[in-house]
Amino acid sequence: LREFLDNRVALLLDVSPALQQLQQVLRDFLLDGGKCLRPTFCYTGWQGAGGDPLSAGILNAAASLELLHACALIHDDIMDASDIRRGKPSVHRRLANMHSNARLRGLPDSFGTAVAILLGDLCLTWCHHMLDECGLPADAVRNAKSLSHLMITEVIAGQCLDVIEQARGFSSVERARTVIHYKTAKYTIERPLQIGAVLAGADADLLAMYSSFALPLGEAFQLRDDVLGVFGDPAETGKPVGDDLRGGKPNVLLTLAREAATTAQCAEIDTLLGDAQLGIKALDSLRETIVSTGALATVEGMITQLTNTALAVLDNARLHGDTDRLLAELAVSATSRVR
Amino acid sequence: LREFLDNRVALLLDVSPALQQLQQVLRDFLLDGGKCLRPTFCYTGWQGAGGDPLSAGILNAAASLELLHACALIHDDIMDASDIRRGKPSVHRRLANMHSNARLRGLPDSFGTAVAILLGDLCLTWCHHMLDECGLPADAVRNAKSLSHLMITEVIAGQCLDVIEQARGFSSVERARTVIHYKTAKYTIERPLQIGAVLAGADADLLAMYSSFALPLGEAFQLRDDVLGVFGDPAETGKPVGDDLRGGKPNVLLTLAREAATTAQCAEIDTLLGDAQLGIKALDSLRETIVSTGALATVEGMITQLTNTALAVLDNARLHGDTDRLLAELAVSATSRVR
Repeated sequence: LREFLDNRVALLLDVSPALQQLQQVLRDFLLDGGKCLRPTFCYTGWQGAGGDPLSAGILNAAASLELLHACALIHDDIMDASDIRRGKPSVHRRLANMHSNARLRGLPDSFGTAVAILLGDLCLTWCHHMLDECGLPADAVRNAKSLSHLMITEVIAGQCLDVIEQARGFSSVERARTVIHYKTAKYTIERPLQIGAVLAGADADLLAMYSSFALPLGEAFQLRDDVLGVFGDPAETGKPVGDDLRGGKPNVLLTLAREAATTAQCAEIDTLLGDAQLGIKALDSLRETIVSTGALATVEGMITQLTNTALAVLDNARLHGDTDRLLAELAVSATSRVR
Repeated sequence: LREFLDNRVALLLDVSPALQQLQQVLRDFLLDGGKCLRPTFCYTGWQGAGGDPLSAGILNAAASLELLHACALIHDDIMDASDIRRGKPSVHRRLANMHSNARLRGLPDSFGTAVAILLGDLCLTWCHHMLDECGLPADAVRNAKSLSHLMITEVIAGQCLDVIEQARGFSSVERARTVIHYKTAKYTIERPLQIGAVLAGADADLLAMYSSFALPLGEAFQLRDDVLGVFGDPAETGKPVGDDLRGGKPNVLLTLAREAATTAQCAEIDTLLGDAQLGIKALDSLRETIVSTGALATVEGMITQLTNTALAVLDNARLHGDTDRLLAELAVSATSRVR
């Protein structure tokens, strides 16, 4: 990734040395602090399908997913007006700070948003570029690109749905789970595994097996994320606790809490959810409701059950090398109580 | 394009019927009112290189550029907070209106911005997808994709530079011309022509000839756009007159005016430029300054000279069919005083 970036960034600096600071912001964001979950699943998917663990091509292909994810995070943080990501200022915030520090004309926030939209677009197009030129055989790359196109359409559709559900307010657990299915389960786990697999020439059976493993695990992963968003330690998650509540996202955890809430609790949730200024005291009260309605226990139960379903798929899987062990470890760490 | 969209949109509706309205907004925008300048240059570049005029593959490849342009316009309109595009509400504005009409939760503007960012991302990724699967031979597509990746990095770099220059305020005509070079000349004319040409298997000489034609023409095209932005008829341009001034863009026309302005005129430009509420009277006064400083005449002279330079390149070009005549017509219409 670093090598690819050096190469691409040289192009930017050819256009103008004035782009120096922007490329630094982008590089800092890309190379610092990501968990590389999607590249890891892609590489593991390749290994399980019998791909050569020492191939340079798969490393390029896997790293390209980190560029896609960078686009998703940069654009997401603009959409959610999130100022913190991975424990540091988000990209649009860093750019706005750059504008303020240099005392440029216009509003820092507008500048930050504009340039961050463009840097996200750049990451998205570089993702396609890096996969196109990963160096693996043309047929394998063509198949991987079909899946990658599908994955990107799915994740954007899932994000659109997320924004729409948020604007509609509470609906049903089922609808909240549809968002998770597309926005997380397919994007974070299923498609990366499958892309790695088709690059190694896997057959339809293996792709189906990866789906059976990935979809429950991906859902469990997002549910864990939702729990950590309310109860987690910001030092570990890199995000301020309660931001989902401030943003007003009716996720599975909150939808369950609201369904089981008393009238008074219900009114409290409706009042506090989406309050951008939500303080510690209100947050504590919402947490209590989430616990007392049994929503937290239900979600913990779902996480355990979904993770077990995923792990059970591995029992009958015939994967190359120690891939089943690696996938089991990833499953446990992705859904465990700490990050 | 319509066929490709039908196919992709079906995927979105598979995710959720709730995406019906969004796909309609996107489809309306894509299929209604664009000049298809980039696809036209791409197709003409193919023809000039001896490509079969009846090939379906080149139509797919050329149409993919309209998807890229849709991303650029949708994201641009967010960045510039432009509410009008092609004489109708811009995409983020349509989405915000949809939110208001349905009385959804949250702020209509935030909803419009969030979904428009996502729809722009979708267009960008569909552009790559459509070019990948245009149906032309794999080698030709690979070469075209290299150029397309380069083009997209260049245009985003040009847009970043545009935002930076705007934030820095007036600099020099030379710097304003660098922005045009990347943001318009390469993106609108040079690269589309060359992509069409490499798809038809053109050699380096033809690509160089297309550059010599395209770069001056592209600059002339943008200068014409800048003039129309201040003096044009909104019924023809589809954009409110004066928006560049309200947005505070120090383009070539304004930079020239400011360089030749009296102290009083200079102060006037600095006060009015970037005033989002700029009214008719102030606009008239700025126009007068642009005329009386000779900036308008200088830019008109540049447009004529650059267009003639481009046309002269065609005199010595050996192109297939009547491509030289088509390119000459495109050159004249792209730089003429009406749109």
